[in-house]
Amino acid sequence: MTMQLKDLGKAVLETQYAVRGPIVAKAQDMEREGREIIYCNIGNPQALEQKPLTYLRQTLALCQYPELIQQAAHLFPADVLENSQRLLVGIEHGMGAYSDSKGVHFIREAVAEFIHERDGIPAHPESIFLSDGASRAVQTVLRMLISGPHDGIMTPVPQYPLYSATITLYDGKQINYYLDEAHNWKLSKAMLEESIYEARRFGVKPKAICVINPGNPTGSVLDYDNIAMIIDFAREHKLTIVADEVYQDNIYLPTDKFVSFAKVMVERGVTDVSLFSFHSCSKGYFGECGQRGGYMEIRNLPKDVIAQITKLQSVGLCSNLTGQVAVYCVVRPPKPGQPSYDLYVAERDHILNGLKTRARVLAEGLNAIPGIECNVVAGSMYAFPKIDLPEGRTDEEYALALLEATGICVVPGTGFGQIPGTAHFRTTILPPTEKIKMVVDRLAGFHVNYR
Amino acid sequence: MTMQLKDLGKAVLETQYAVRGPIVAKAQDMEREGREIIYCNIGNPQALEQKPLTYLRQTLALCQYPELIQQAAHLFPADVLENSQRLLVGIEHGMGAYSDSKGVHFIREAVAEFIHERDGIPAHPESIFLSDGASRAVQTVLRMLISGPHDGIMTPVPQYPLYSATITLYDGKQINYYLDEAHNWKLSKAMLEESIYEARRFGVKPKAICVINPGNPTGSVLDYDNIAMIIDFAREHKLTIVADEVYQDNIYLPTDKFVSFAKVMVERGVTDVSLFSFHSCSKGYFGECGQRGGYMEIRNLPKDVIAQITKLQSVGLCSNLTGQVAVYCVVRPPKPGQPSYDLYVAERDHILNGLKTRARVLAEGLNAIPGIECNVVAGSMYAFPKIDLPEGRTDEEYALALLEATGICVVPGTGFGQIPGTAHFRTTILPPTEKIKMVVDRLAGFHVNYR
Repeated sequence: MTMQLKDLGKAVLETQYAVRGPIVAKAQDMEREGREIIYCNIGNPQALEQKPLTYLRQTLALCQYPELIQQAAHLFPADVLENSQRLLVGIEHGMGAYSDSKGVHFIREAVAEFIHERDGIPAHPESIFLSDGASRAVQTVLRMLISGPHDGIMTPVPQYPLYSATITLYDGKQINYYLDEAHNWKLSKAMLEESIYEARRFGVKPKAICVINPGNPTGSVLDYDNIAMIIDFAREHKLTIVADEVYQDNIYLPTDKFVSFAKVMVERGVTDVSLFSFHSCSKGYFGECGQRGGYMEIRNLPKDVIAQITKLQSVGLCSNLTGQVAVYCVVRPPKPGQPSYDLYVAERDHILNGLKTRARVLAEGLNAIPGIECNVVAGSMYAFPKIDLPEGRTDEEYALALLEATGICVVPGTGFGQIPGTAHFRTTILPPTEKIKMVVDRLAGFHVNYR
Repeated sequence: MTMQLKDLGKAVLETQYAVRGPIVAKAQDMEREGREIIYCNIGNPQALEQKPLTYLRQTLALCQYPELIQQAAHLFPADVLENSQRLLVGIEHGMGAYSDSKGVHFIREAVAEFIHERDGIPAHPESIFLSDGASRAVQTVLRMLISGPHDGIMTPVPQYPLYSATITLYDGKQINYYLDEAHNWKLSKAMLEESIYEARRFGVKPKAICVINPGNPTGSVLDYDNIAMIIDFAREHKLTIVADEVYQDNIYLPTDKFVSFAKVMVERGVTDVSLFSFHSCSKGYFGECGQRGGYMEIRNLPKDVIAQITKLQSVGLCSNLTGQVAVYCVVRPPKPGQPSYDLYVAERDHILNGLKTRARVLAEGLNAIPGIECNVVAGSMYAFPKIDLPEGRTDEEYALALLEATGICVVPGTGFGQIPGTAHFRTTILPPTEKIKMVVDRLAGFHVNYR
């Protein structure tokens, strides 16, 4: 007898990941049948015409096939050639050998310097772990945090479903805390207090709080005081902080800026709250999702716990070297005066300006549709508009009907969580501006007629 | 208060992975202090002077930076240029976009054709999942198979500790079955029967049997009849088969050849045993460990279970595209008559002949040392010799003393499992032949004096 569905555990069966769920499967079926689909379901910029940054791809090509450094030197800027040579010395055995479980030391040094320069705080290569995208590192950390079925992880609602899926898969408890949609999805102490109080009442033991900043799917950006409040809350309740900061370069309003949890912690002298923070080459203006590069920085952890993380990483041997080199490129972009600098700046600004425009066009367009309300998209790559639905209709039915009527593929709010009785969907801001306008037009036509 | 070791779960704390355990950490410390270390602990060929295959690296460079296809066409063989262009069309959005969760369809088609040609059996792209090395896919499968704390997975002893580590981490039960050292580590039906009987007696529910062929750490190769016996055993006991076939190209005796579980199953018309089989770009003559490319083929699984695997893969989005392209190169090497063929054959044969020589030199050398006994290294990249130890000494102490005295880093047998009362270590056959001779000489000097 072959394996049957009933042989699978509850944790596996209950795991859900809507970003690639049934609506997306339906969209792919439709595409195979010849329909044009606009994929707004996933933050995958290069699938939507975004071009890779030249210096990054040149570096990857040279590292994979170092013969080109001699043979084709005339085709590459001098700084990219030098940088690749330095990298190859640092990697030691090339792209084909397993690195240390934590990643190449030379690259972890570069990451530590990047954090130091970004935040003006000390950072150490031994506190950096390179990973296959941020997702893998988040999963490792959640595996560590969940030690039994009563352990709870506080997650925002709405949240990116990597968190809910992984907590379910590892048989932990998800403790929802609501973000305040009426105030641009801000995070309030009262909401946090209420959620932890409820969890304890039901016998759940809160272990950690996850924060996504800039927000996915909300598009909101936290300020210094908000972050300080969260750190104080974590300290008071003995929680570890899991800070998903992969959208740190995706901030669109001149009044906002990215503030890291690490910076606020160090500046306020907090040494008794453990922190895991994550970054990636998949987002920002790089959008190199397919390379699967990411890093995690840890703070305020005892040595024996760090050894356990290293052990868990070592079972999978190491993250892929291409992703590691992509992370190096993210933290070490060309500097002013270097031959590759001007092109880098032009490519970067083109991408970021495009995203800024689309964030505005999309939110304004959505707000102009009666029955749809959207907060400003201040950061990340998403909007999470609230939609009025006819009595008895679900957001899942809505998203499916939208797909069938217009070819637009969004993810229903249920996949991220929302206040019961409300309905939303998540859409990316990634399609080219002309297509974003098309999305808004089609949505308007669809929404007013939806029954 | 920060996270403490006591906050971690039993499963995490008890997970062990000796291939990168404390002995290796010690070796790295010694290396930092200036000692020369010969790393025989891990199958990482390119860290031990093995060169990458040229056509594979050329393909990766062209896929990462397609501008080279025009700009530097004169530096690449015509078939590599054409192949890369075809690949880029198949990948659709380049190396920077997430692919389907299961991997690029075009590459999965190539894998299916490879299996068809290798085994003369039908194979389907929808049954192929691309993964970050074989390890990740093995972990996904074990996660699926272990649905509760009484679920047991049969694993060989000795075994590659990815299996024991992952079973511990997912809180399942490991059911040991012993390989017969006196008969070249062959697998006997009696041993399997005994082990499953014992497991049931202790209330463990056997779900699957893992087989590593060619063997890691044993270096043995299974024949057709042996595989047919295992399939019959699995059928009788309603077990899923987990077949680790990553060393399929590493076979050194002219009398042996690789036989896949899939081939035997199909040829014998077995449709009621589920099969997961794994391959990788890290081993064979490629040795591209750092690229983290692998695939899993599934057979005899109902659609709803396949959908669950896809869901689990989708939480991590997709495996890295470089690893996916490396897998493509593994399954689609240059063909006779193509411009890159001669170099490919020369590089491949140089590597395989080197491994064959070292397998022989190492086993013969070990057997010449009084108190060390080693089976023939018929396949894979390892030897697992039995060592006589002085009363009261453990193999861990031995490996540590060996490291300190000689700089040779091996993994104690305890990390793989062995019959109680026996002692072993695992060493790779990867160092260059001159170094293998040095390893044997130093071991001989060390072993006779070990107290």
